[in-house]
Amino acid sequence: MSNNYCIATYRCHDDAADFHKKAQGIAVGLTVGSWTELPEARKAEMEKHLGRVISVTVHEPEGFAPGERYADLQIAYPDVNFSRDIPALLVTVFGKLSMDGRIKLLDLDFSSDFASAFSGPKFGIQGVRSLLGVQERPLLMSIFKSVIGHDLTNLREQFYLQALGGVDLIKDDEILFENPLTPLEQRVEACMGAAKQAEAETGQKLLYAVNLTGPTSQLAANAKRAIAAGANAILFNTLAYGYDALHELSSNSDISVPIAAHPALAGALYPSPHYGIAAPLLLGKLMRLAGADLVLFPSPYGSVVMPKEENLAVQAALIDPALPVRSSFPVPSAGIHPGLTPLILRDFGHDVVVNAGGGIHGHPQGTAAGGLAFRQAIAAALSSTSLPDAAAQQGNEALKIAIDTWGYKE
Amino acid sequence: MSNNYCIATYRCHDDAADFHKKAQGIAVGLTVGSWTELPEARKAEMEKHLGRVISVTVHEPEGFAPGERYADLQIAYPDVNFSRDIPALLVTVFGKLSMDGRIKLLDLDFSSDFASAFSGPKFGIQGVRSLLGVQERPLLMSIFKSVIGHDLTNLREQFYLQALGGVDLIKDDEILFENPLTPLEQRVEACMGAAKQAEAETGQKLLYAVNLTGPTSQLAANAKRAIAAGANAILFNTLAYGYDALHELSSNSDISVPIAAHPALAGALYPSPHYGIAAPLLLGKLMRLAGADLVLFPSPYGSVVMPKEENLAVQAALIDPALPVRSSFPVPSAGIHPGLTPLILRDFGHDVVVNAGGGIHGHPQGTAAGGLAFRQAIAAALSSTSLPDAAAQQGNEALKIAIDTWGYKE
Repeated sequence: MSNNYCIATYRCHDDAADFHKKAQGIAVGLTVGSWTELPEARKAEMEKHLGRVISVTVHEPEGFAPGERYADLQIAYPDVNFSRDIPALLVTVFGKLSMDGRIKLLDLDFSSDFASAFSGPKFGIQGVRSLLGVQERPLLMSIFKSVIGHDLTNLREQFYLQALGGVDLIKDDEILFENPLTPLEQRVEACMGAAKQAEAETGQKLLYAVNLTGPTSQLAANAKRAIAAGANAILFNTLAYGYDALHELSSNSDISVPIAAHPALAGALYPSPHYGIAAPLLLGKLMRLAGADLVLFPSPYGSVVMPKEENLAVQAALIDPALPVRSSFPVPSAGIHPGLTPLILRDFGHDVVVNAGGGIHGHPQGTAAGGLAFRQAIAAALSSTSLPDAAAQQGNEALKIAIDTWGYKE
Repeated sequence: MSNNYCIATYRCHDDAADFHKKAQGIAVGLTVGSWTELPEARKAEMEKHLGRVISVTVHEPEGFAPGERYADLQIAYPDVNFSRDIPALLVTVFGKLSMDGRIKLLDLDFSSDFASAFSGPKFGIQGVRSLLGVQERPLLMSIFKSVIGHDLTNLREQFYLQALGGVDLIKDDEILFENPLTPLEQRVEACMGAAKQAEAETGQKLLYAVNLTGPTSQLAANAKRAIAAGANAILFNTLAYGYDALHELSSNSDISVPIAAHPALAGALYPSPHYGIAAPLLLGKLMRLAGADLVLFPSPYGSVVMPKEENLAVQAALIDPALPVRSSFPVPSAGIHPGLTPLILRDFGHDVVVNAGGGIHGHPQGTAAGGLAFRQAIAAALSSTSLPDAAAQQGNEALKIAIDTWGYKE
């Protein structure tokens, strides 16, 4: 972390380019505009605005086939050139450049000065744990089965069954917007009522991440309405509104609940090897800097595929101690059933949110048993009991049926 | 345009998928969640929420090579499922789906009901022409040569020389943020002062699109400050803030100046054949719906390459009479010098903004002569005079030198 330069790393595919020249062109073109033609006296004044090439690493295997040659370029951009916000940084380092051939933004190393303008997640991993009173084990999140076209009674019932199963967090579907059947405040009241009812039976606290939607200028007001109605967490489609909208929500002192960032639209940006923004930056570092307490991202287990090393790199960015803000809770999502729990914990450690939809609602004994099966699987993994052994134990019928249904991996 | 369904068109690459099944999965999965398992009585209630497959067009050449097989899928999404804002529509049609394999969002056909929530550009092509008092000819826009590290005196001088050359619009560099050397209001005052001075000599009106930056919640206030200081246009890095931020600015009755949308970051989204959002939707239809009066996009002439049919499709989306809002002025940008003017007019017609940076400042006789050369080239093209003939005419020395320097195409 430099004091006053933000460093961008790009991967640039080109069969013939002079990558060193290209890097120089970027460093000058995206900062002072031109350099060699400046009078010497002017250069002295302008030097503090000039970008610097940090490194150029060319990957050029002998006899490479077309499309195989690329270089990773690292360029340092002086903080003095841009304001302390993510739109300014992204426009500086990848605004025009994103349109200049096969180039992908791999990483950003924020300067300490730039990073100091961000307070990051208000809660982070420890804060979310404290709210729930769960210090050790991985958390369990569930997703409504279906929400569109359902009324408050139905949603409340779905919520109650999920809560009974012992989940720690329940999130709205990201495609549930303001609608006459389940308007924001009534939805919060109905679901938090169900949460209280379940808590009376289970003794367990629960966070409900209600989907924050609407016009950009109304997001903070909507969040406050939801909180006033009892919401104790927020789900936010960050990429649809921009990182700065998340940053403003997370740094708003009146919005004192954890924010879960949903990765909606991320697939338009990260999967191409040639274009876009790499997932560890897009869903990791930038979400965290902008203040997401929890970040959902594609798991390596489901149909929504992201290579495993990329999943782990997203997680690494969410918890990297080098970034001077709280860690964000990693929430690898999609394709998860109870039999994958030991694998998830081995891949991601204990500071992870196990997040399931079909793997909870699809349990043959129903939604509550689905949650229970996950909690039993988590307990087994933490006590290093194999899933078949745990499933054979008295009281763990839910887990047994789950692994009979979906199998397991250890 | 359907009354109450928004239709998304996707291109989906897969060597083996059952595309019809995939389309059905999308139509159900992104709306009601599940269908076949619903009781009949419930189906009647849910039908209005159910997505519909409109078409599946499989491209499968005989003996196709891996990667060549794809299908275009059209899915209709009921308006009743989402609120009347672009984030809600994008999250619905491409939120989770963007992460589901090789799939690109090609187009959106807004329902008449959805579109009716948008007033579109406040000025549009005719409104911008009226402000400038230029009804017939293509407009000419210029860009500062370099801005970072320059003070007000320098910027004013650059502005004055551009204005003297007869340009209609001058835009800030998109990487000029709030900074101590040229703060927003002082920059506007200095540049508009230069505009008045030049107008006294040329008799020509001019719009200055000042870069609107800063925290999302301050954008409207910053725009009003700029306008109060004399700004008569705004430049906005739309994709860094989201389309809804543009929509809120364009529909704010206190922001009564044209807004030019910059395509910064667009290259992270449109160039891949497999992922992202196609340029005519990203930079065309959505920018226009959100209210951009002018839209910059890569020209087919420069180093920032976009295939020509894609450039023309962006333009077509900006002026398509099927969308019930004003047209946006197309501003193909990059790599433009005076010798390309006849070609630009042939490609884009007369309702185009000819936009140049190096092609103005790089003129051997200087910036003012650069603007003049463009105006002479535009006049020649409108009177069907060949550039060499026009360059040979008395008074057209600026054009002659320009085509001697950069050549020409006709």
